[in-house]
Amino acid sequence: MDPGDGPSGDLLEAVANPHPARAYEVRCSTPEFTCVCPRTGQPDFATVTVVYVPGPWIVELKSLKLYLWSYRNEGAFHEDVTNRILDDLVAAITPRRMTVSTDWLVRGGIHTVVEARHPEA
Amino acid sequence: MDPGDGPSGDLLEAVANPHPARAYEVRCSTPEFTCVCPRTGQPDFATVTVVYVPGPWIVELKSLKLYLWSYRNEGAFHEDVTNRILDDLVAAITPRRMTVSTDWLVRGGIHTVVEARHPEA
Amino acid sequence: MDPGDGPSGDLLEAVANPHPARAYEVRCSTPEFTCVCPRTGQPDFATVTVVYVPGPWIVELKSLKLYLWSYRNEGAFHEDVTNRILDDLVAAITPRRMTVSTDWLVRGGIHTVVEARHPEA
Amino acid sequence: MDPGDGPSGDLLEAVANPHPARAYEVRCSTPEFTCVCPRTGQPDFATVTVVYVPGPWIVELKSLKLYLWSYRNEGAFHEDVTNRILDDLVAAITPRRMTVSTDWLVRGGIHTVVEARHPEA
Amino acid sequence: MDPGDGPSGDLLEAVANPHPARAYEVRCSTPEFTCVCPRTGQPDFATVTVVYVPGPWIVELKSLKLYLWSYRNEGAFHEDVTNRILDDLVAAITPRRMTVSTDWLVRGGIHTVVEARHPEA
Amino acid sequence: MDPGDGPSGDLLEAVANPHPARAYEVRCSTPEFTCVCPRTGQPDFATVTVVYVPGPWIVELKSLKLYLWSYRNEGAFHEDVTNRILDDLVAAITPRRMTVSTDWLVRGGIHTVVEARHPEA
Amino acid sequence: MDPGDGPSGDLLEAVANPHPARAYEVRCSTPEFTCVCPRTGQPDFATVTVVYVPGPWIVELKSLKLYLWSYRNEGAFHEDVTNRILDDLVAAITPRRMTVSTDWLVRGGIHTVVEARHPEA
Amino acid sequence: MDPGDGPSGDLLEAVANPHPARAYEVRCSTPEFTCVCPRTGQPDFATVTVVYVPGPWIVELKSLKLYLWSYRNEGAFHEDVTNRILDDLVAAITPRRMTVSTDWLVRGGIHTVVEARHPEA
Amino acid sequence: MDPGDGPSGDLLEAVANPHPARAYEVRCSTPEFTCVCPRTGQPDFATVTVVYVPGPWIVELKSLKLYLWSYRNEGAFHEDVTNRILDDLVAAITPRRMTVSTDWLVRGGIHTVVEARHPEA
Amino acid sequence: MDPGDGPSGDLLEAVANPHPARAYEVRCSTPEFTCVCPRTGQPDFATVTVVYVPGPWIVELKSLKLYLWSYRNEGAFHEDVTNRILDDLVAAITPRRMTVSTDWLVRGGIHTVVEARHPEA
Repeated sequence: MDPGDGPSGDLLEAVANPHPARAYEVRCSTPEFTCVCPRTGQPDFATVTVVYVPGPWIVELKSLKLYLWSYRNEGAFHEDVTNRILDDLVAAITPRRMTVSTDWLVRGGIHTVVEARHPEA
Repeated sequence: MDPGDGPSGDLLEAVANPHPARAYEVRCSTPEFTCVCPRTGQPDFATVTVVYVPGPWIVELKSLKLYLWSYRNEGAFHEDVTNRILDDLVAAITPRRMTVSTDWLVRGGIHTVVEARHPEA
Repeated sequence: MDPGDGPSGDLLEAVANPHPARAYEVRCSTPEFTCVCPRTGQPDFATVTVVYVPGPWIVELKSLKLYLWSYRNEGAFHEDVTNRILDDLVAAITPRRMTVSTDWLVRGGIHTVVEARHPEA
Repeated sequence: MDPGDGPSGDLLEAVANPHPARAYEVRCSTPEFTCVCPRTGQPDFATVTVVYVPGPWIVELKSLKLYLWSYRNEGAFHEDVTNRILDDLVAAITPRRMTVSTDWLVRGGIHTVVEARHPEA
Repeated sequence: MDPGDGPSGDLLEAVANPHPARAYEVRCSTPEFTCVCPRTGQPDFATVTVVYVPGPWIVELKSLKLYLWSYRNEGAFHEDVTNRILDDLVAAITPRRMTVSTDWLVRGGIHTVVEARHPEA
Repeated sequence: MDPGDGPSGDLLEAVANPHPARAYEVRCSTPEFTCVCPRTGQPDFATVTVVYVPGPWIVELKSLKLYLWSYRNEGAFHEDVTNRILDDLVAAITPRRMTVSTDWLVRGGIHTVVEARHPEA
Repeated sequence: MDPGDGPSGDLLEAVANPHPARAYEVRCSTPEFTCVCPRTGQPDFATVTVVYVPGPWIVELKSLKLYLWSYRNEGAFHEDVTNRILDDLVAAITPRRMTVSTDWLVRGGIHTVVEARHPEA
Repeated sequence: MDPGDGPSGDLLEAVANPHPARAYEVRCSTPEFTCVCPRTGQPDFATVTVVYVPGPWIVELKSLKLYLWSYRNEGAFHEDVTNRILDDLVAAITPRRMTVSTDWLVRGGIHTVVEARHPEA
Repeated sequence: MDPGDGPSGDLLEAVANPHPARAYEVRCSTPEFTCVCPRTGQPDFATVTVVYVPGPWIVELKSLKLYLWSYRNEGAFHEDVTNRILDDLVAAITPRRMTVSTDWLVRGGIHTVVEARHPEA
Repeated sequence: MDPGDGPSGDLLEAVANPHPARAYEVRCSTPEFTCVCPRTGQPDFATVTVVYVPGPWIVELKSLKLYLWSYRNEGAFHEDVTNRILDDLVAAITPRRMTVSTDWLVRGGIHTVVEARHPEA
C-alpha cells in the first residue's frame, strides 16, 4: 500500500456478521492515527475510537488499520476527518448505529476531541 | 478435562438461585481467557466479564472457569466468541437478563471490546 | 461478642433519623468483611457497601461493624450473604430504599461482585 | 472569629448572582472540614462538596469557608451535619437546587458518605 | 495582540462547519487560563472546557486561544467569567448547543467549578 | 485444618529450589490476612508481602496460604506478627535474604505498615 | 482529654518492643492532623507520617493519636510543628532512627511538605 | 509452529546489534504469556518482562513472541520458567546483562512475581 | 504589588529557621506560575517546585508567592527562569542545599522540565 | 520542510546555554514520533524522551520538533533510531551527559522501550 494515494473507503473490508440477529456492540480503538494539518503542513496525532452495532457486516480489523493508515499524508481538519471516517465506515458496513471519536494531541495548548454519530440521536 | 475437546455449554453447572424472588445482579470477571485466531493460528487474549440478573439458577463459578478454559485451543473470532459465550450461558441458567463483554489485548495496534446482551434492550 | 454465635440482624441498632422529612442518601463501605466458603471451608474476603435513603431510622455505625463481624465464622455463598445482609438491614431500619453490594477477592481467577436492591427498581 | 460560638447560617454571605437568567451550576469542594463526635468527643474529618444552581444569589467563598470552620468545636453526627449545612445554605441563598455531600474519613473500618438534595428529586 | 485591551468576542474567528448537516460534538479543553481576582488583584488560574455541537460555524482554535488569553489582565469572578465566555462563543458561532466549564485552582482551601449551558436543558 | 490451633511454622512446606545456583528474587503478596487485636478482641486486616532470594528451598504457595490463614483467631500486635512470620519463614526455608511487610487497614485514623528483613542490612 | 491543654510529649505512651534485637521498620500515617496558623488564626490541615526503626520501645498507636490531636488548638508553623513532633517522639521512645513528615493542604496556591530525620543522615 | 513441541531456545533469533559499542538498554514486556500448572494441569497466566543491555546481538521481536508462545502447553512452575527463559535468552544473544521477570495472575489469593538476573549483581 | 515591575529577589522574605541545628527538608510546589515567551510574546505556564534544606533562614510562603507572581509579564526562557529562581532563593535564604524544578505545559508537542541544584552534586 | 529528505542532525539548532557554569538538567518528552518499520513498511509510533545536562549549548525546541518529524518516512529499527537520535543530539550540542529513550506502541503483543546514554555510566 502506498499511503500517498490518500484515504479511500475502498480500503475497508466488510465481513459477514456472524450473529446478525442480535444488536451487540463492537468497540475498536487505536492511538496510531496521524495526518497533516492543512494550514501548517505539520503532522497531527490522534486516538481514533469506533463504536458500532453491526448490521449485516462487521469491519475487518486489518482493513480498518490500513484505512486509518491512508490518512498519513492527508491534510485534514479535526472536524472534517472525524466525519469522513464515519461516512466511509457507514458506507462500507451499514451498521445499525456507529460513533466515531478522535482525540487529538495538544495544539496551541488546547486538547480537542471530536465525536460524530450515525444515525443522529 | 481436556481443552482439546473444545468449548461446550455442557461444562456449565447451574445451581439453584438462593433468592429467586429478588432481581439482584451478579458480575463475574476474569482476565484469564485465551483462544486462537482462526486466520493466523496465533493465540489471542481477553478479559471476559459476565453480568447477569439470575432467574431460577446461578452459574457455579468453578464450572464457569472450566467453560472459559475450554476455548484455549479453539479458533474463534472476537465477535463470534462473545455471542457464543452469551448463548451458552443463557441456555444453561436462563437469566432474567445477561451481558457478556470481551476486552481483547491489542492486535495490529487496535484494542477491541465486544459486548452482547440478552434480551436486547 | 462471640462471632461464633453467627450472624443475626439483632446485632443491628436503629437510631432515629434526625431529618426524616428529607430523602437524603447514606453510603457506608468497608473492606473488612470475611466469611467462610461453605464448600471448601476456606476464608473468603469482600468489601461490603451499603447505600440507603433512611426512613424513620438510620443504622448505628458501630452496630453495623459488629453485625458484619458476626459473619467471620459463617459458611456463606456470595449470592446468599449479599441478600441476607440486605434483608437484615431492611428489617432493622425500614429504609425508603437500599442497595447492598459485595465485592469479593479473586477465587479461581474470577472476580465477583453481587448487588441487591430493596425495593426492586 | 471564634469557632467556639458554633455554626450559624449568619456567617454565610449572599452575593448577587451576576447571571440570574441562566441555570448554570457551581461546585465547591473542600477537604478542610472537621467537627467533633458527639459520642466520643474525638475529632471527625470530612470533605464537604456543595453543588448548586444559583437563584438570585451566589455564596461568597470566604464566608463559606468561615461557616464550615465554625463546626470545628461542634458535636455533630454525620447525617445531621450534612442536612444542617444544606438547610443553612438554602436559607442563605435560595438556590434553584442544591446538593451537599460529606465524605468522612474512616471510623471503625467504615467509610461513610452522606448526600442531601434540595429540593428532593 | 495586547492582552491589556481585555476580553472581546471579536477575537473569536468563525469557520464554516464542514459537516453542518450532522449534529456532531466538539470538545476543547485548556489548562492555560488565567485572570485576576477583582477583590484582591491576585491572579487566578483555571482549566477551561468548551463542549459544543456546531451549527453553521466551528470556532477556529487559534482564535479561541487568543480570546482566552485576553482575560490575562481582566478582573473577573469565577461565575461571571464562565457565563461571559459562553455568551461570547454563542454570539460568535451560534452552536446548536454549548457547555462552558471552568475548573479553578484552590482558593481559601476551596476548589470551585462553574458550568453553564446554552440553551438550558 | 482448624485455624483454632493457631499459627505454626510447621504448616510451611519447603520445596527444593529448581535453580539454587542463581540469586533470583520471589515476591508473594496477599490481601487475605486477618488476625485479632489482643487488646479489643476485634479483627484486624492486613496485606502481607514476602520478598526473598531462595537458598536451598522455595516456599510452596498453598502452604504459605494455610500458614497465613492460621492467624485468623490469633491475638497479635502488628509489630509482633510481622516478626513472627519472618522468623517462621526463615526457619522453614533458610533464604539468602527475606523481607516481610504487613500493611494494615486503618485503626484510629492511622494507617500502619511494618517491615522486617533477614538478615539485617 | 482537653485539647486546649496543648501538645505535650507526655501524651505519648512507650510500649516495650517485642523484637528489640532486629532493626525492623514501622510506618504510621494519618490525614487527621489539624492545628492553627499563628499569623491568621485560621486552621491548617496536614497528613502526618512517622517512619521509625524501634529501639527499646514502640509507640502505642492510640497515644500517638491523642498526641497529634493535642495540636488542634495550637498555633504552629509548618516547619516548627514537624520538628517538635520528631523531638517529642524521639524523647518518648528513643528509636534507632526516625523520620517525621507533614504534608499540608494548599495555602496561597502552594503545597508544602516538611520532613525531618533523627539522627541526621 | 506447533506449540505442542514445547519451549526451545532454538526459536529465538539473534540479530546483529546495530550499535554494539554502546551499553544501551532494551526493555520488552508482554502480558500474553500462558503455561500450565504442573500440579493441577490448569492454565497459568503471566506478564513477562525482559530488560537487557545487548552484546553482539539483539533478540528479534517476532522470534521472542514465538518463543514465549511455545510455553502454552508446557507444565512449568513460576520459579522454574523464569530461570529457563533467562537461560535461553542468555544462550541465544549473550547480552552484557539481562533481567527476566514474570508477574503471575492470582492463585490461592496470592500474587507472585519472580525476577532473575544475569550475571548476578 | 505591580507585576509590571518584573521579578526581583527583593520580594523574597527570609524568616529565621526555628530549628537551625537539624538538616530537615522543606518542599514547596505550585502550579500557579506563568511568564511570557521571549520569542512569541505568548504566555507560558509551569508548575514550580522548590526543595531545600534550610540554613539560618526559611522562605516566607506569601513572599514566595509574590516573587513567583512577579514573572507574570516577564519574557523568560525555560532554562533561564529556572536558574534565576534558584539564584534568587539561594541569595535570599542561603540554604544548605536547594533544588528548583519547573514543569512546563506542552509547546510544539513537547513537554519540558528543567531542574537546577545548589550546590551541585 | 519536506520529511521525505529524511533525518539529519543538521536540522538541530544549538542555542547558547544561558547558565553554562551550573550542571542543571533539561527533560524534553513528546508522544509525537512516528517512523516506518523497515521490514513491513508499516508505521511505528513512539514517545521520545531526551534528558540532558547542557554543556555550552541547549537544543532549540522547535528545531528538535522538526528533527524528530524528519523520521516520518524513514525506515528505522527501534534500537537503531534511539542510538541515532542520541548521536545526532550529542554532535549538535555536546552535552555534559544525555539520555535518549523511545517507548514504542505495542507490536506483536510486545511493548518495547530502548534507552541509550552518553557518556556511558
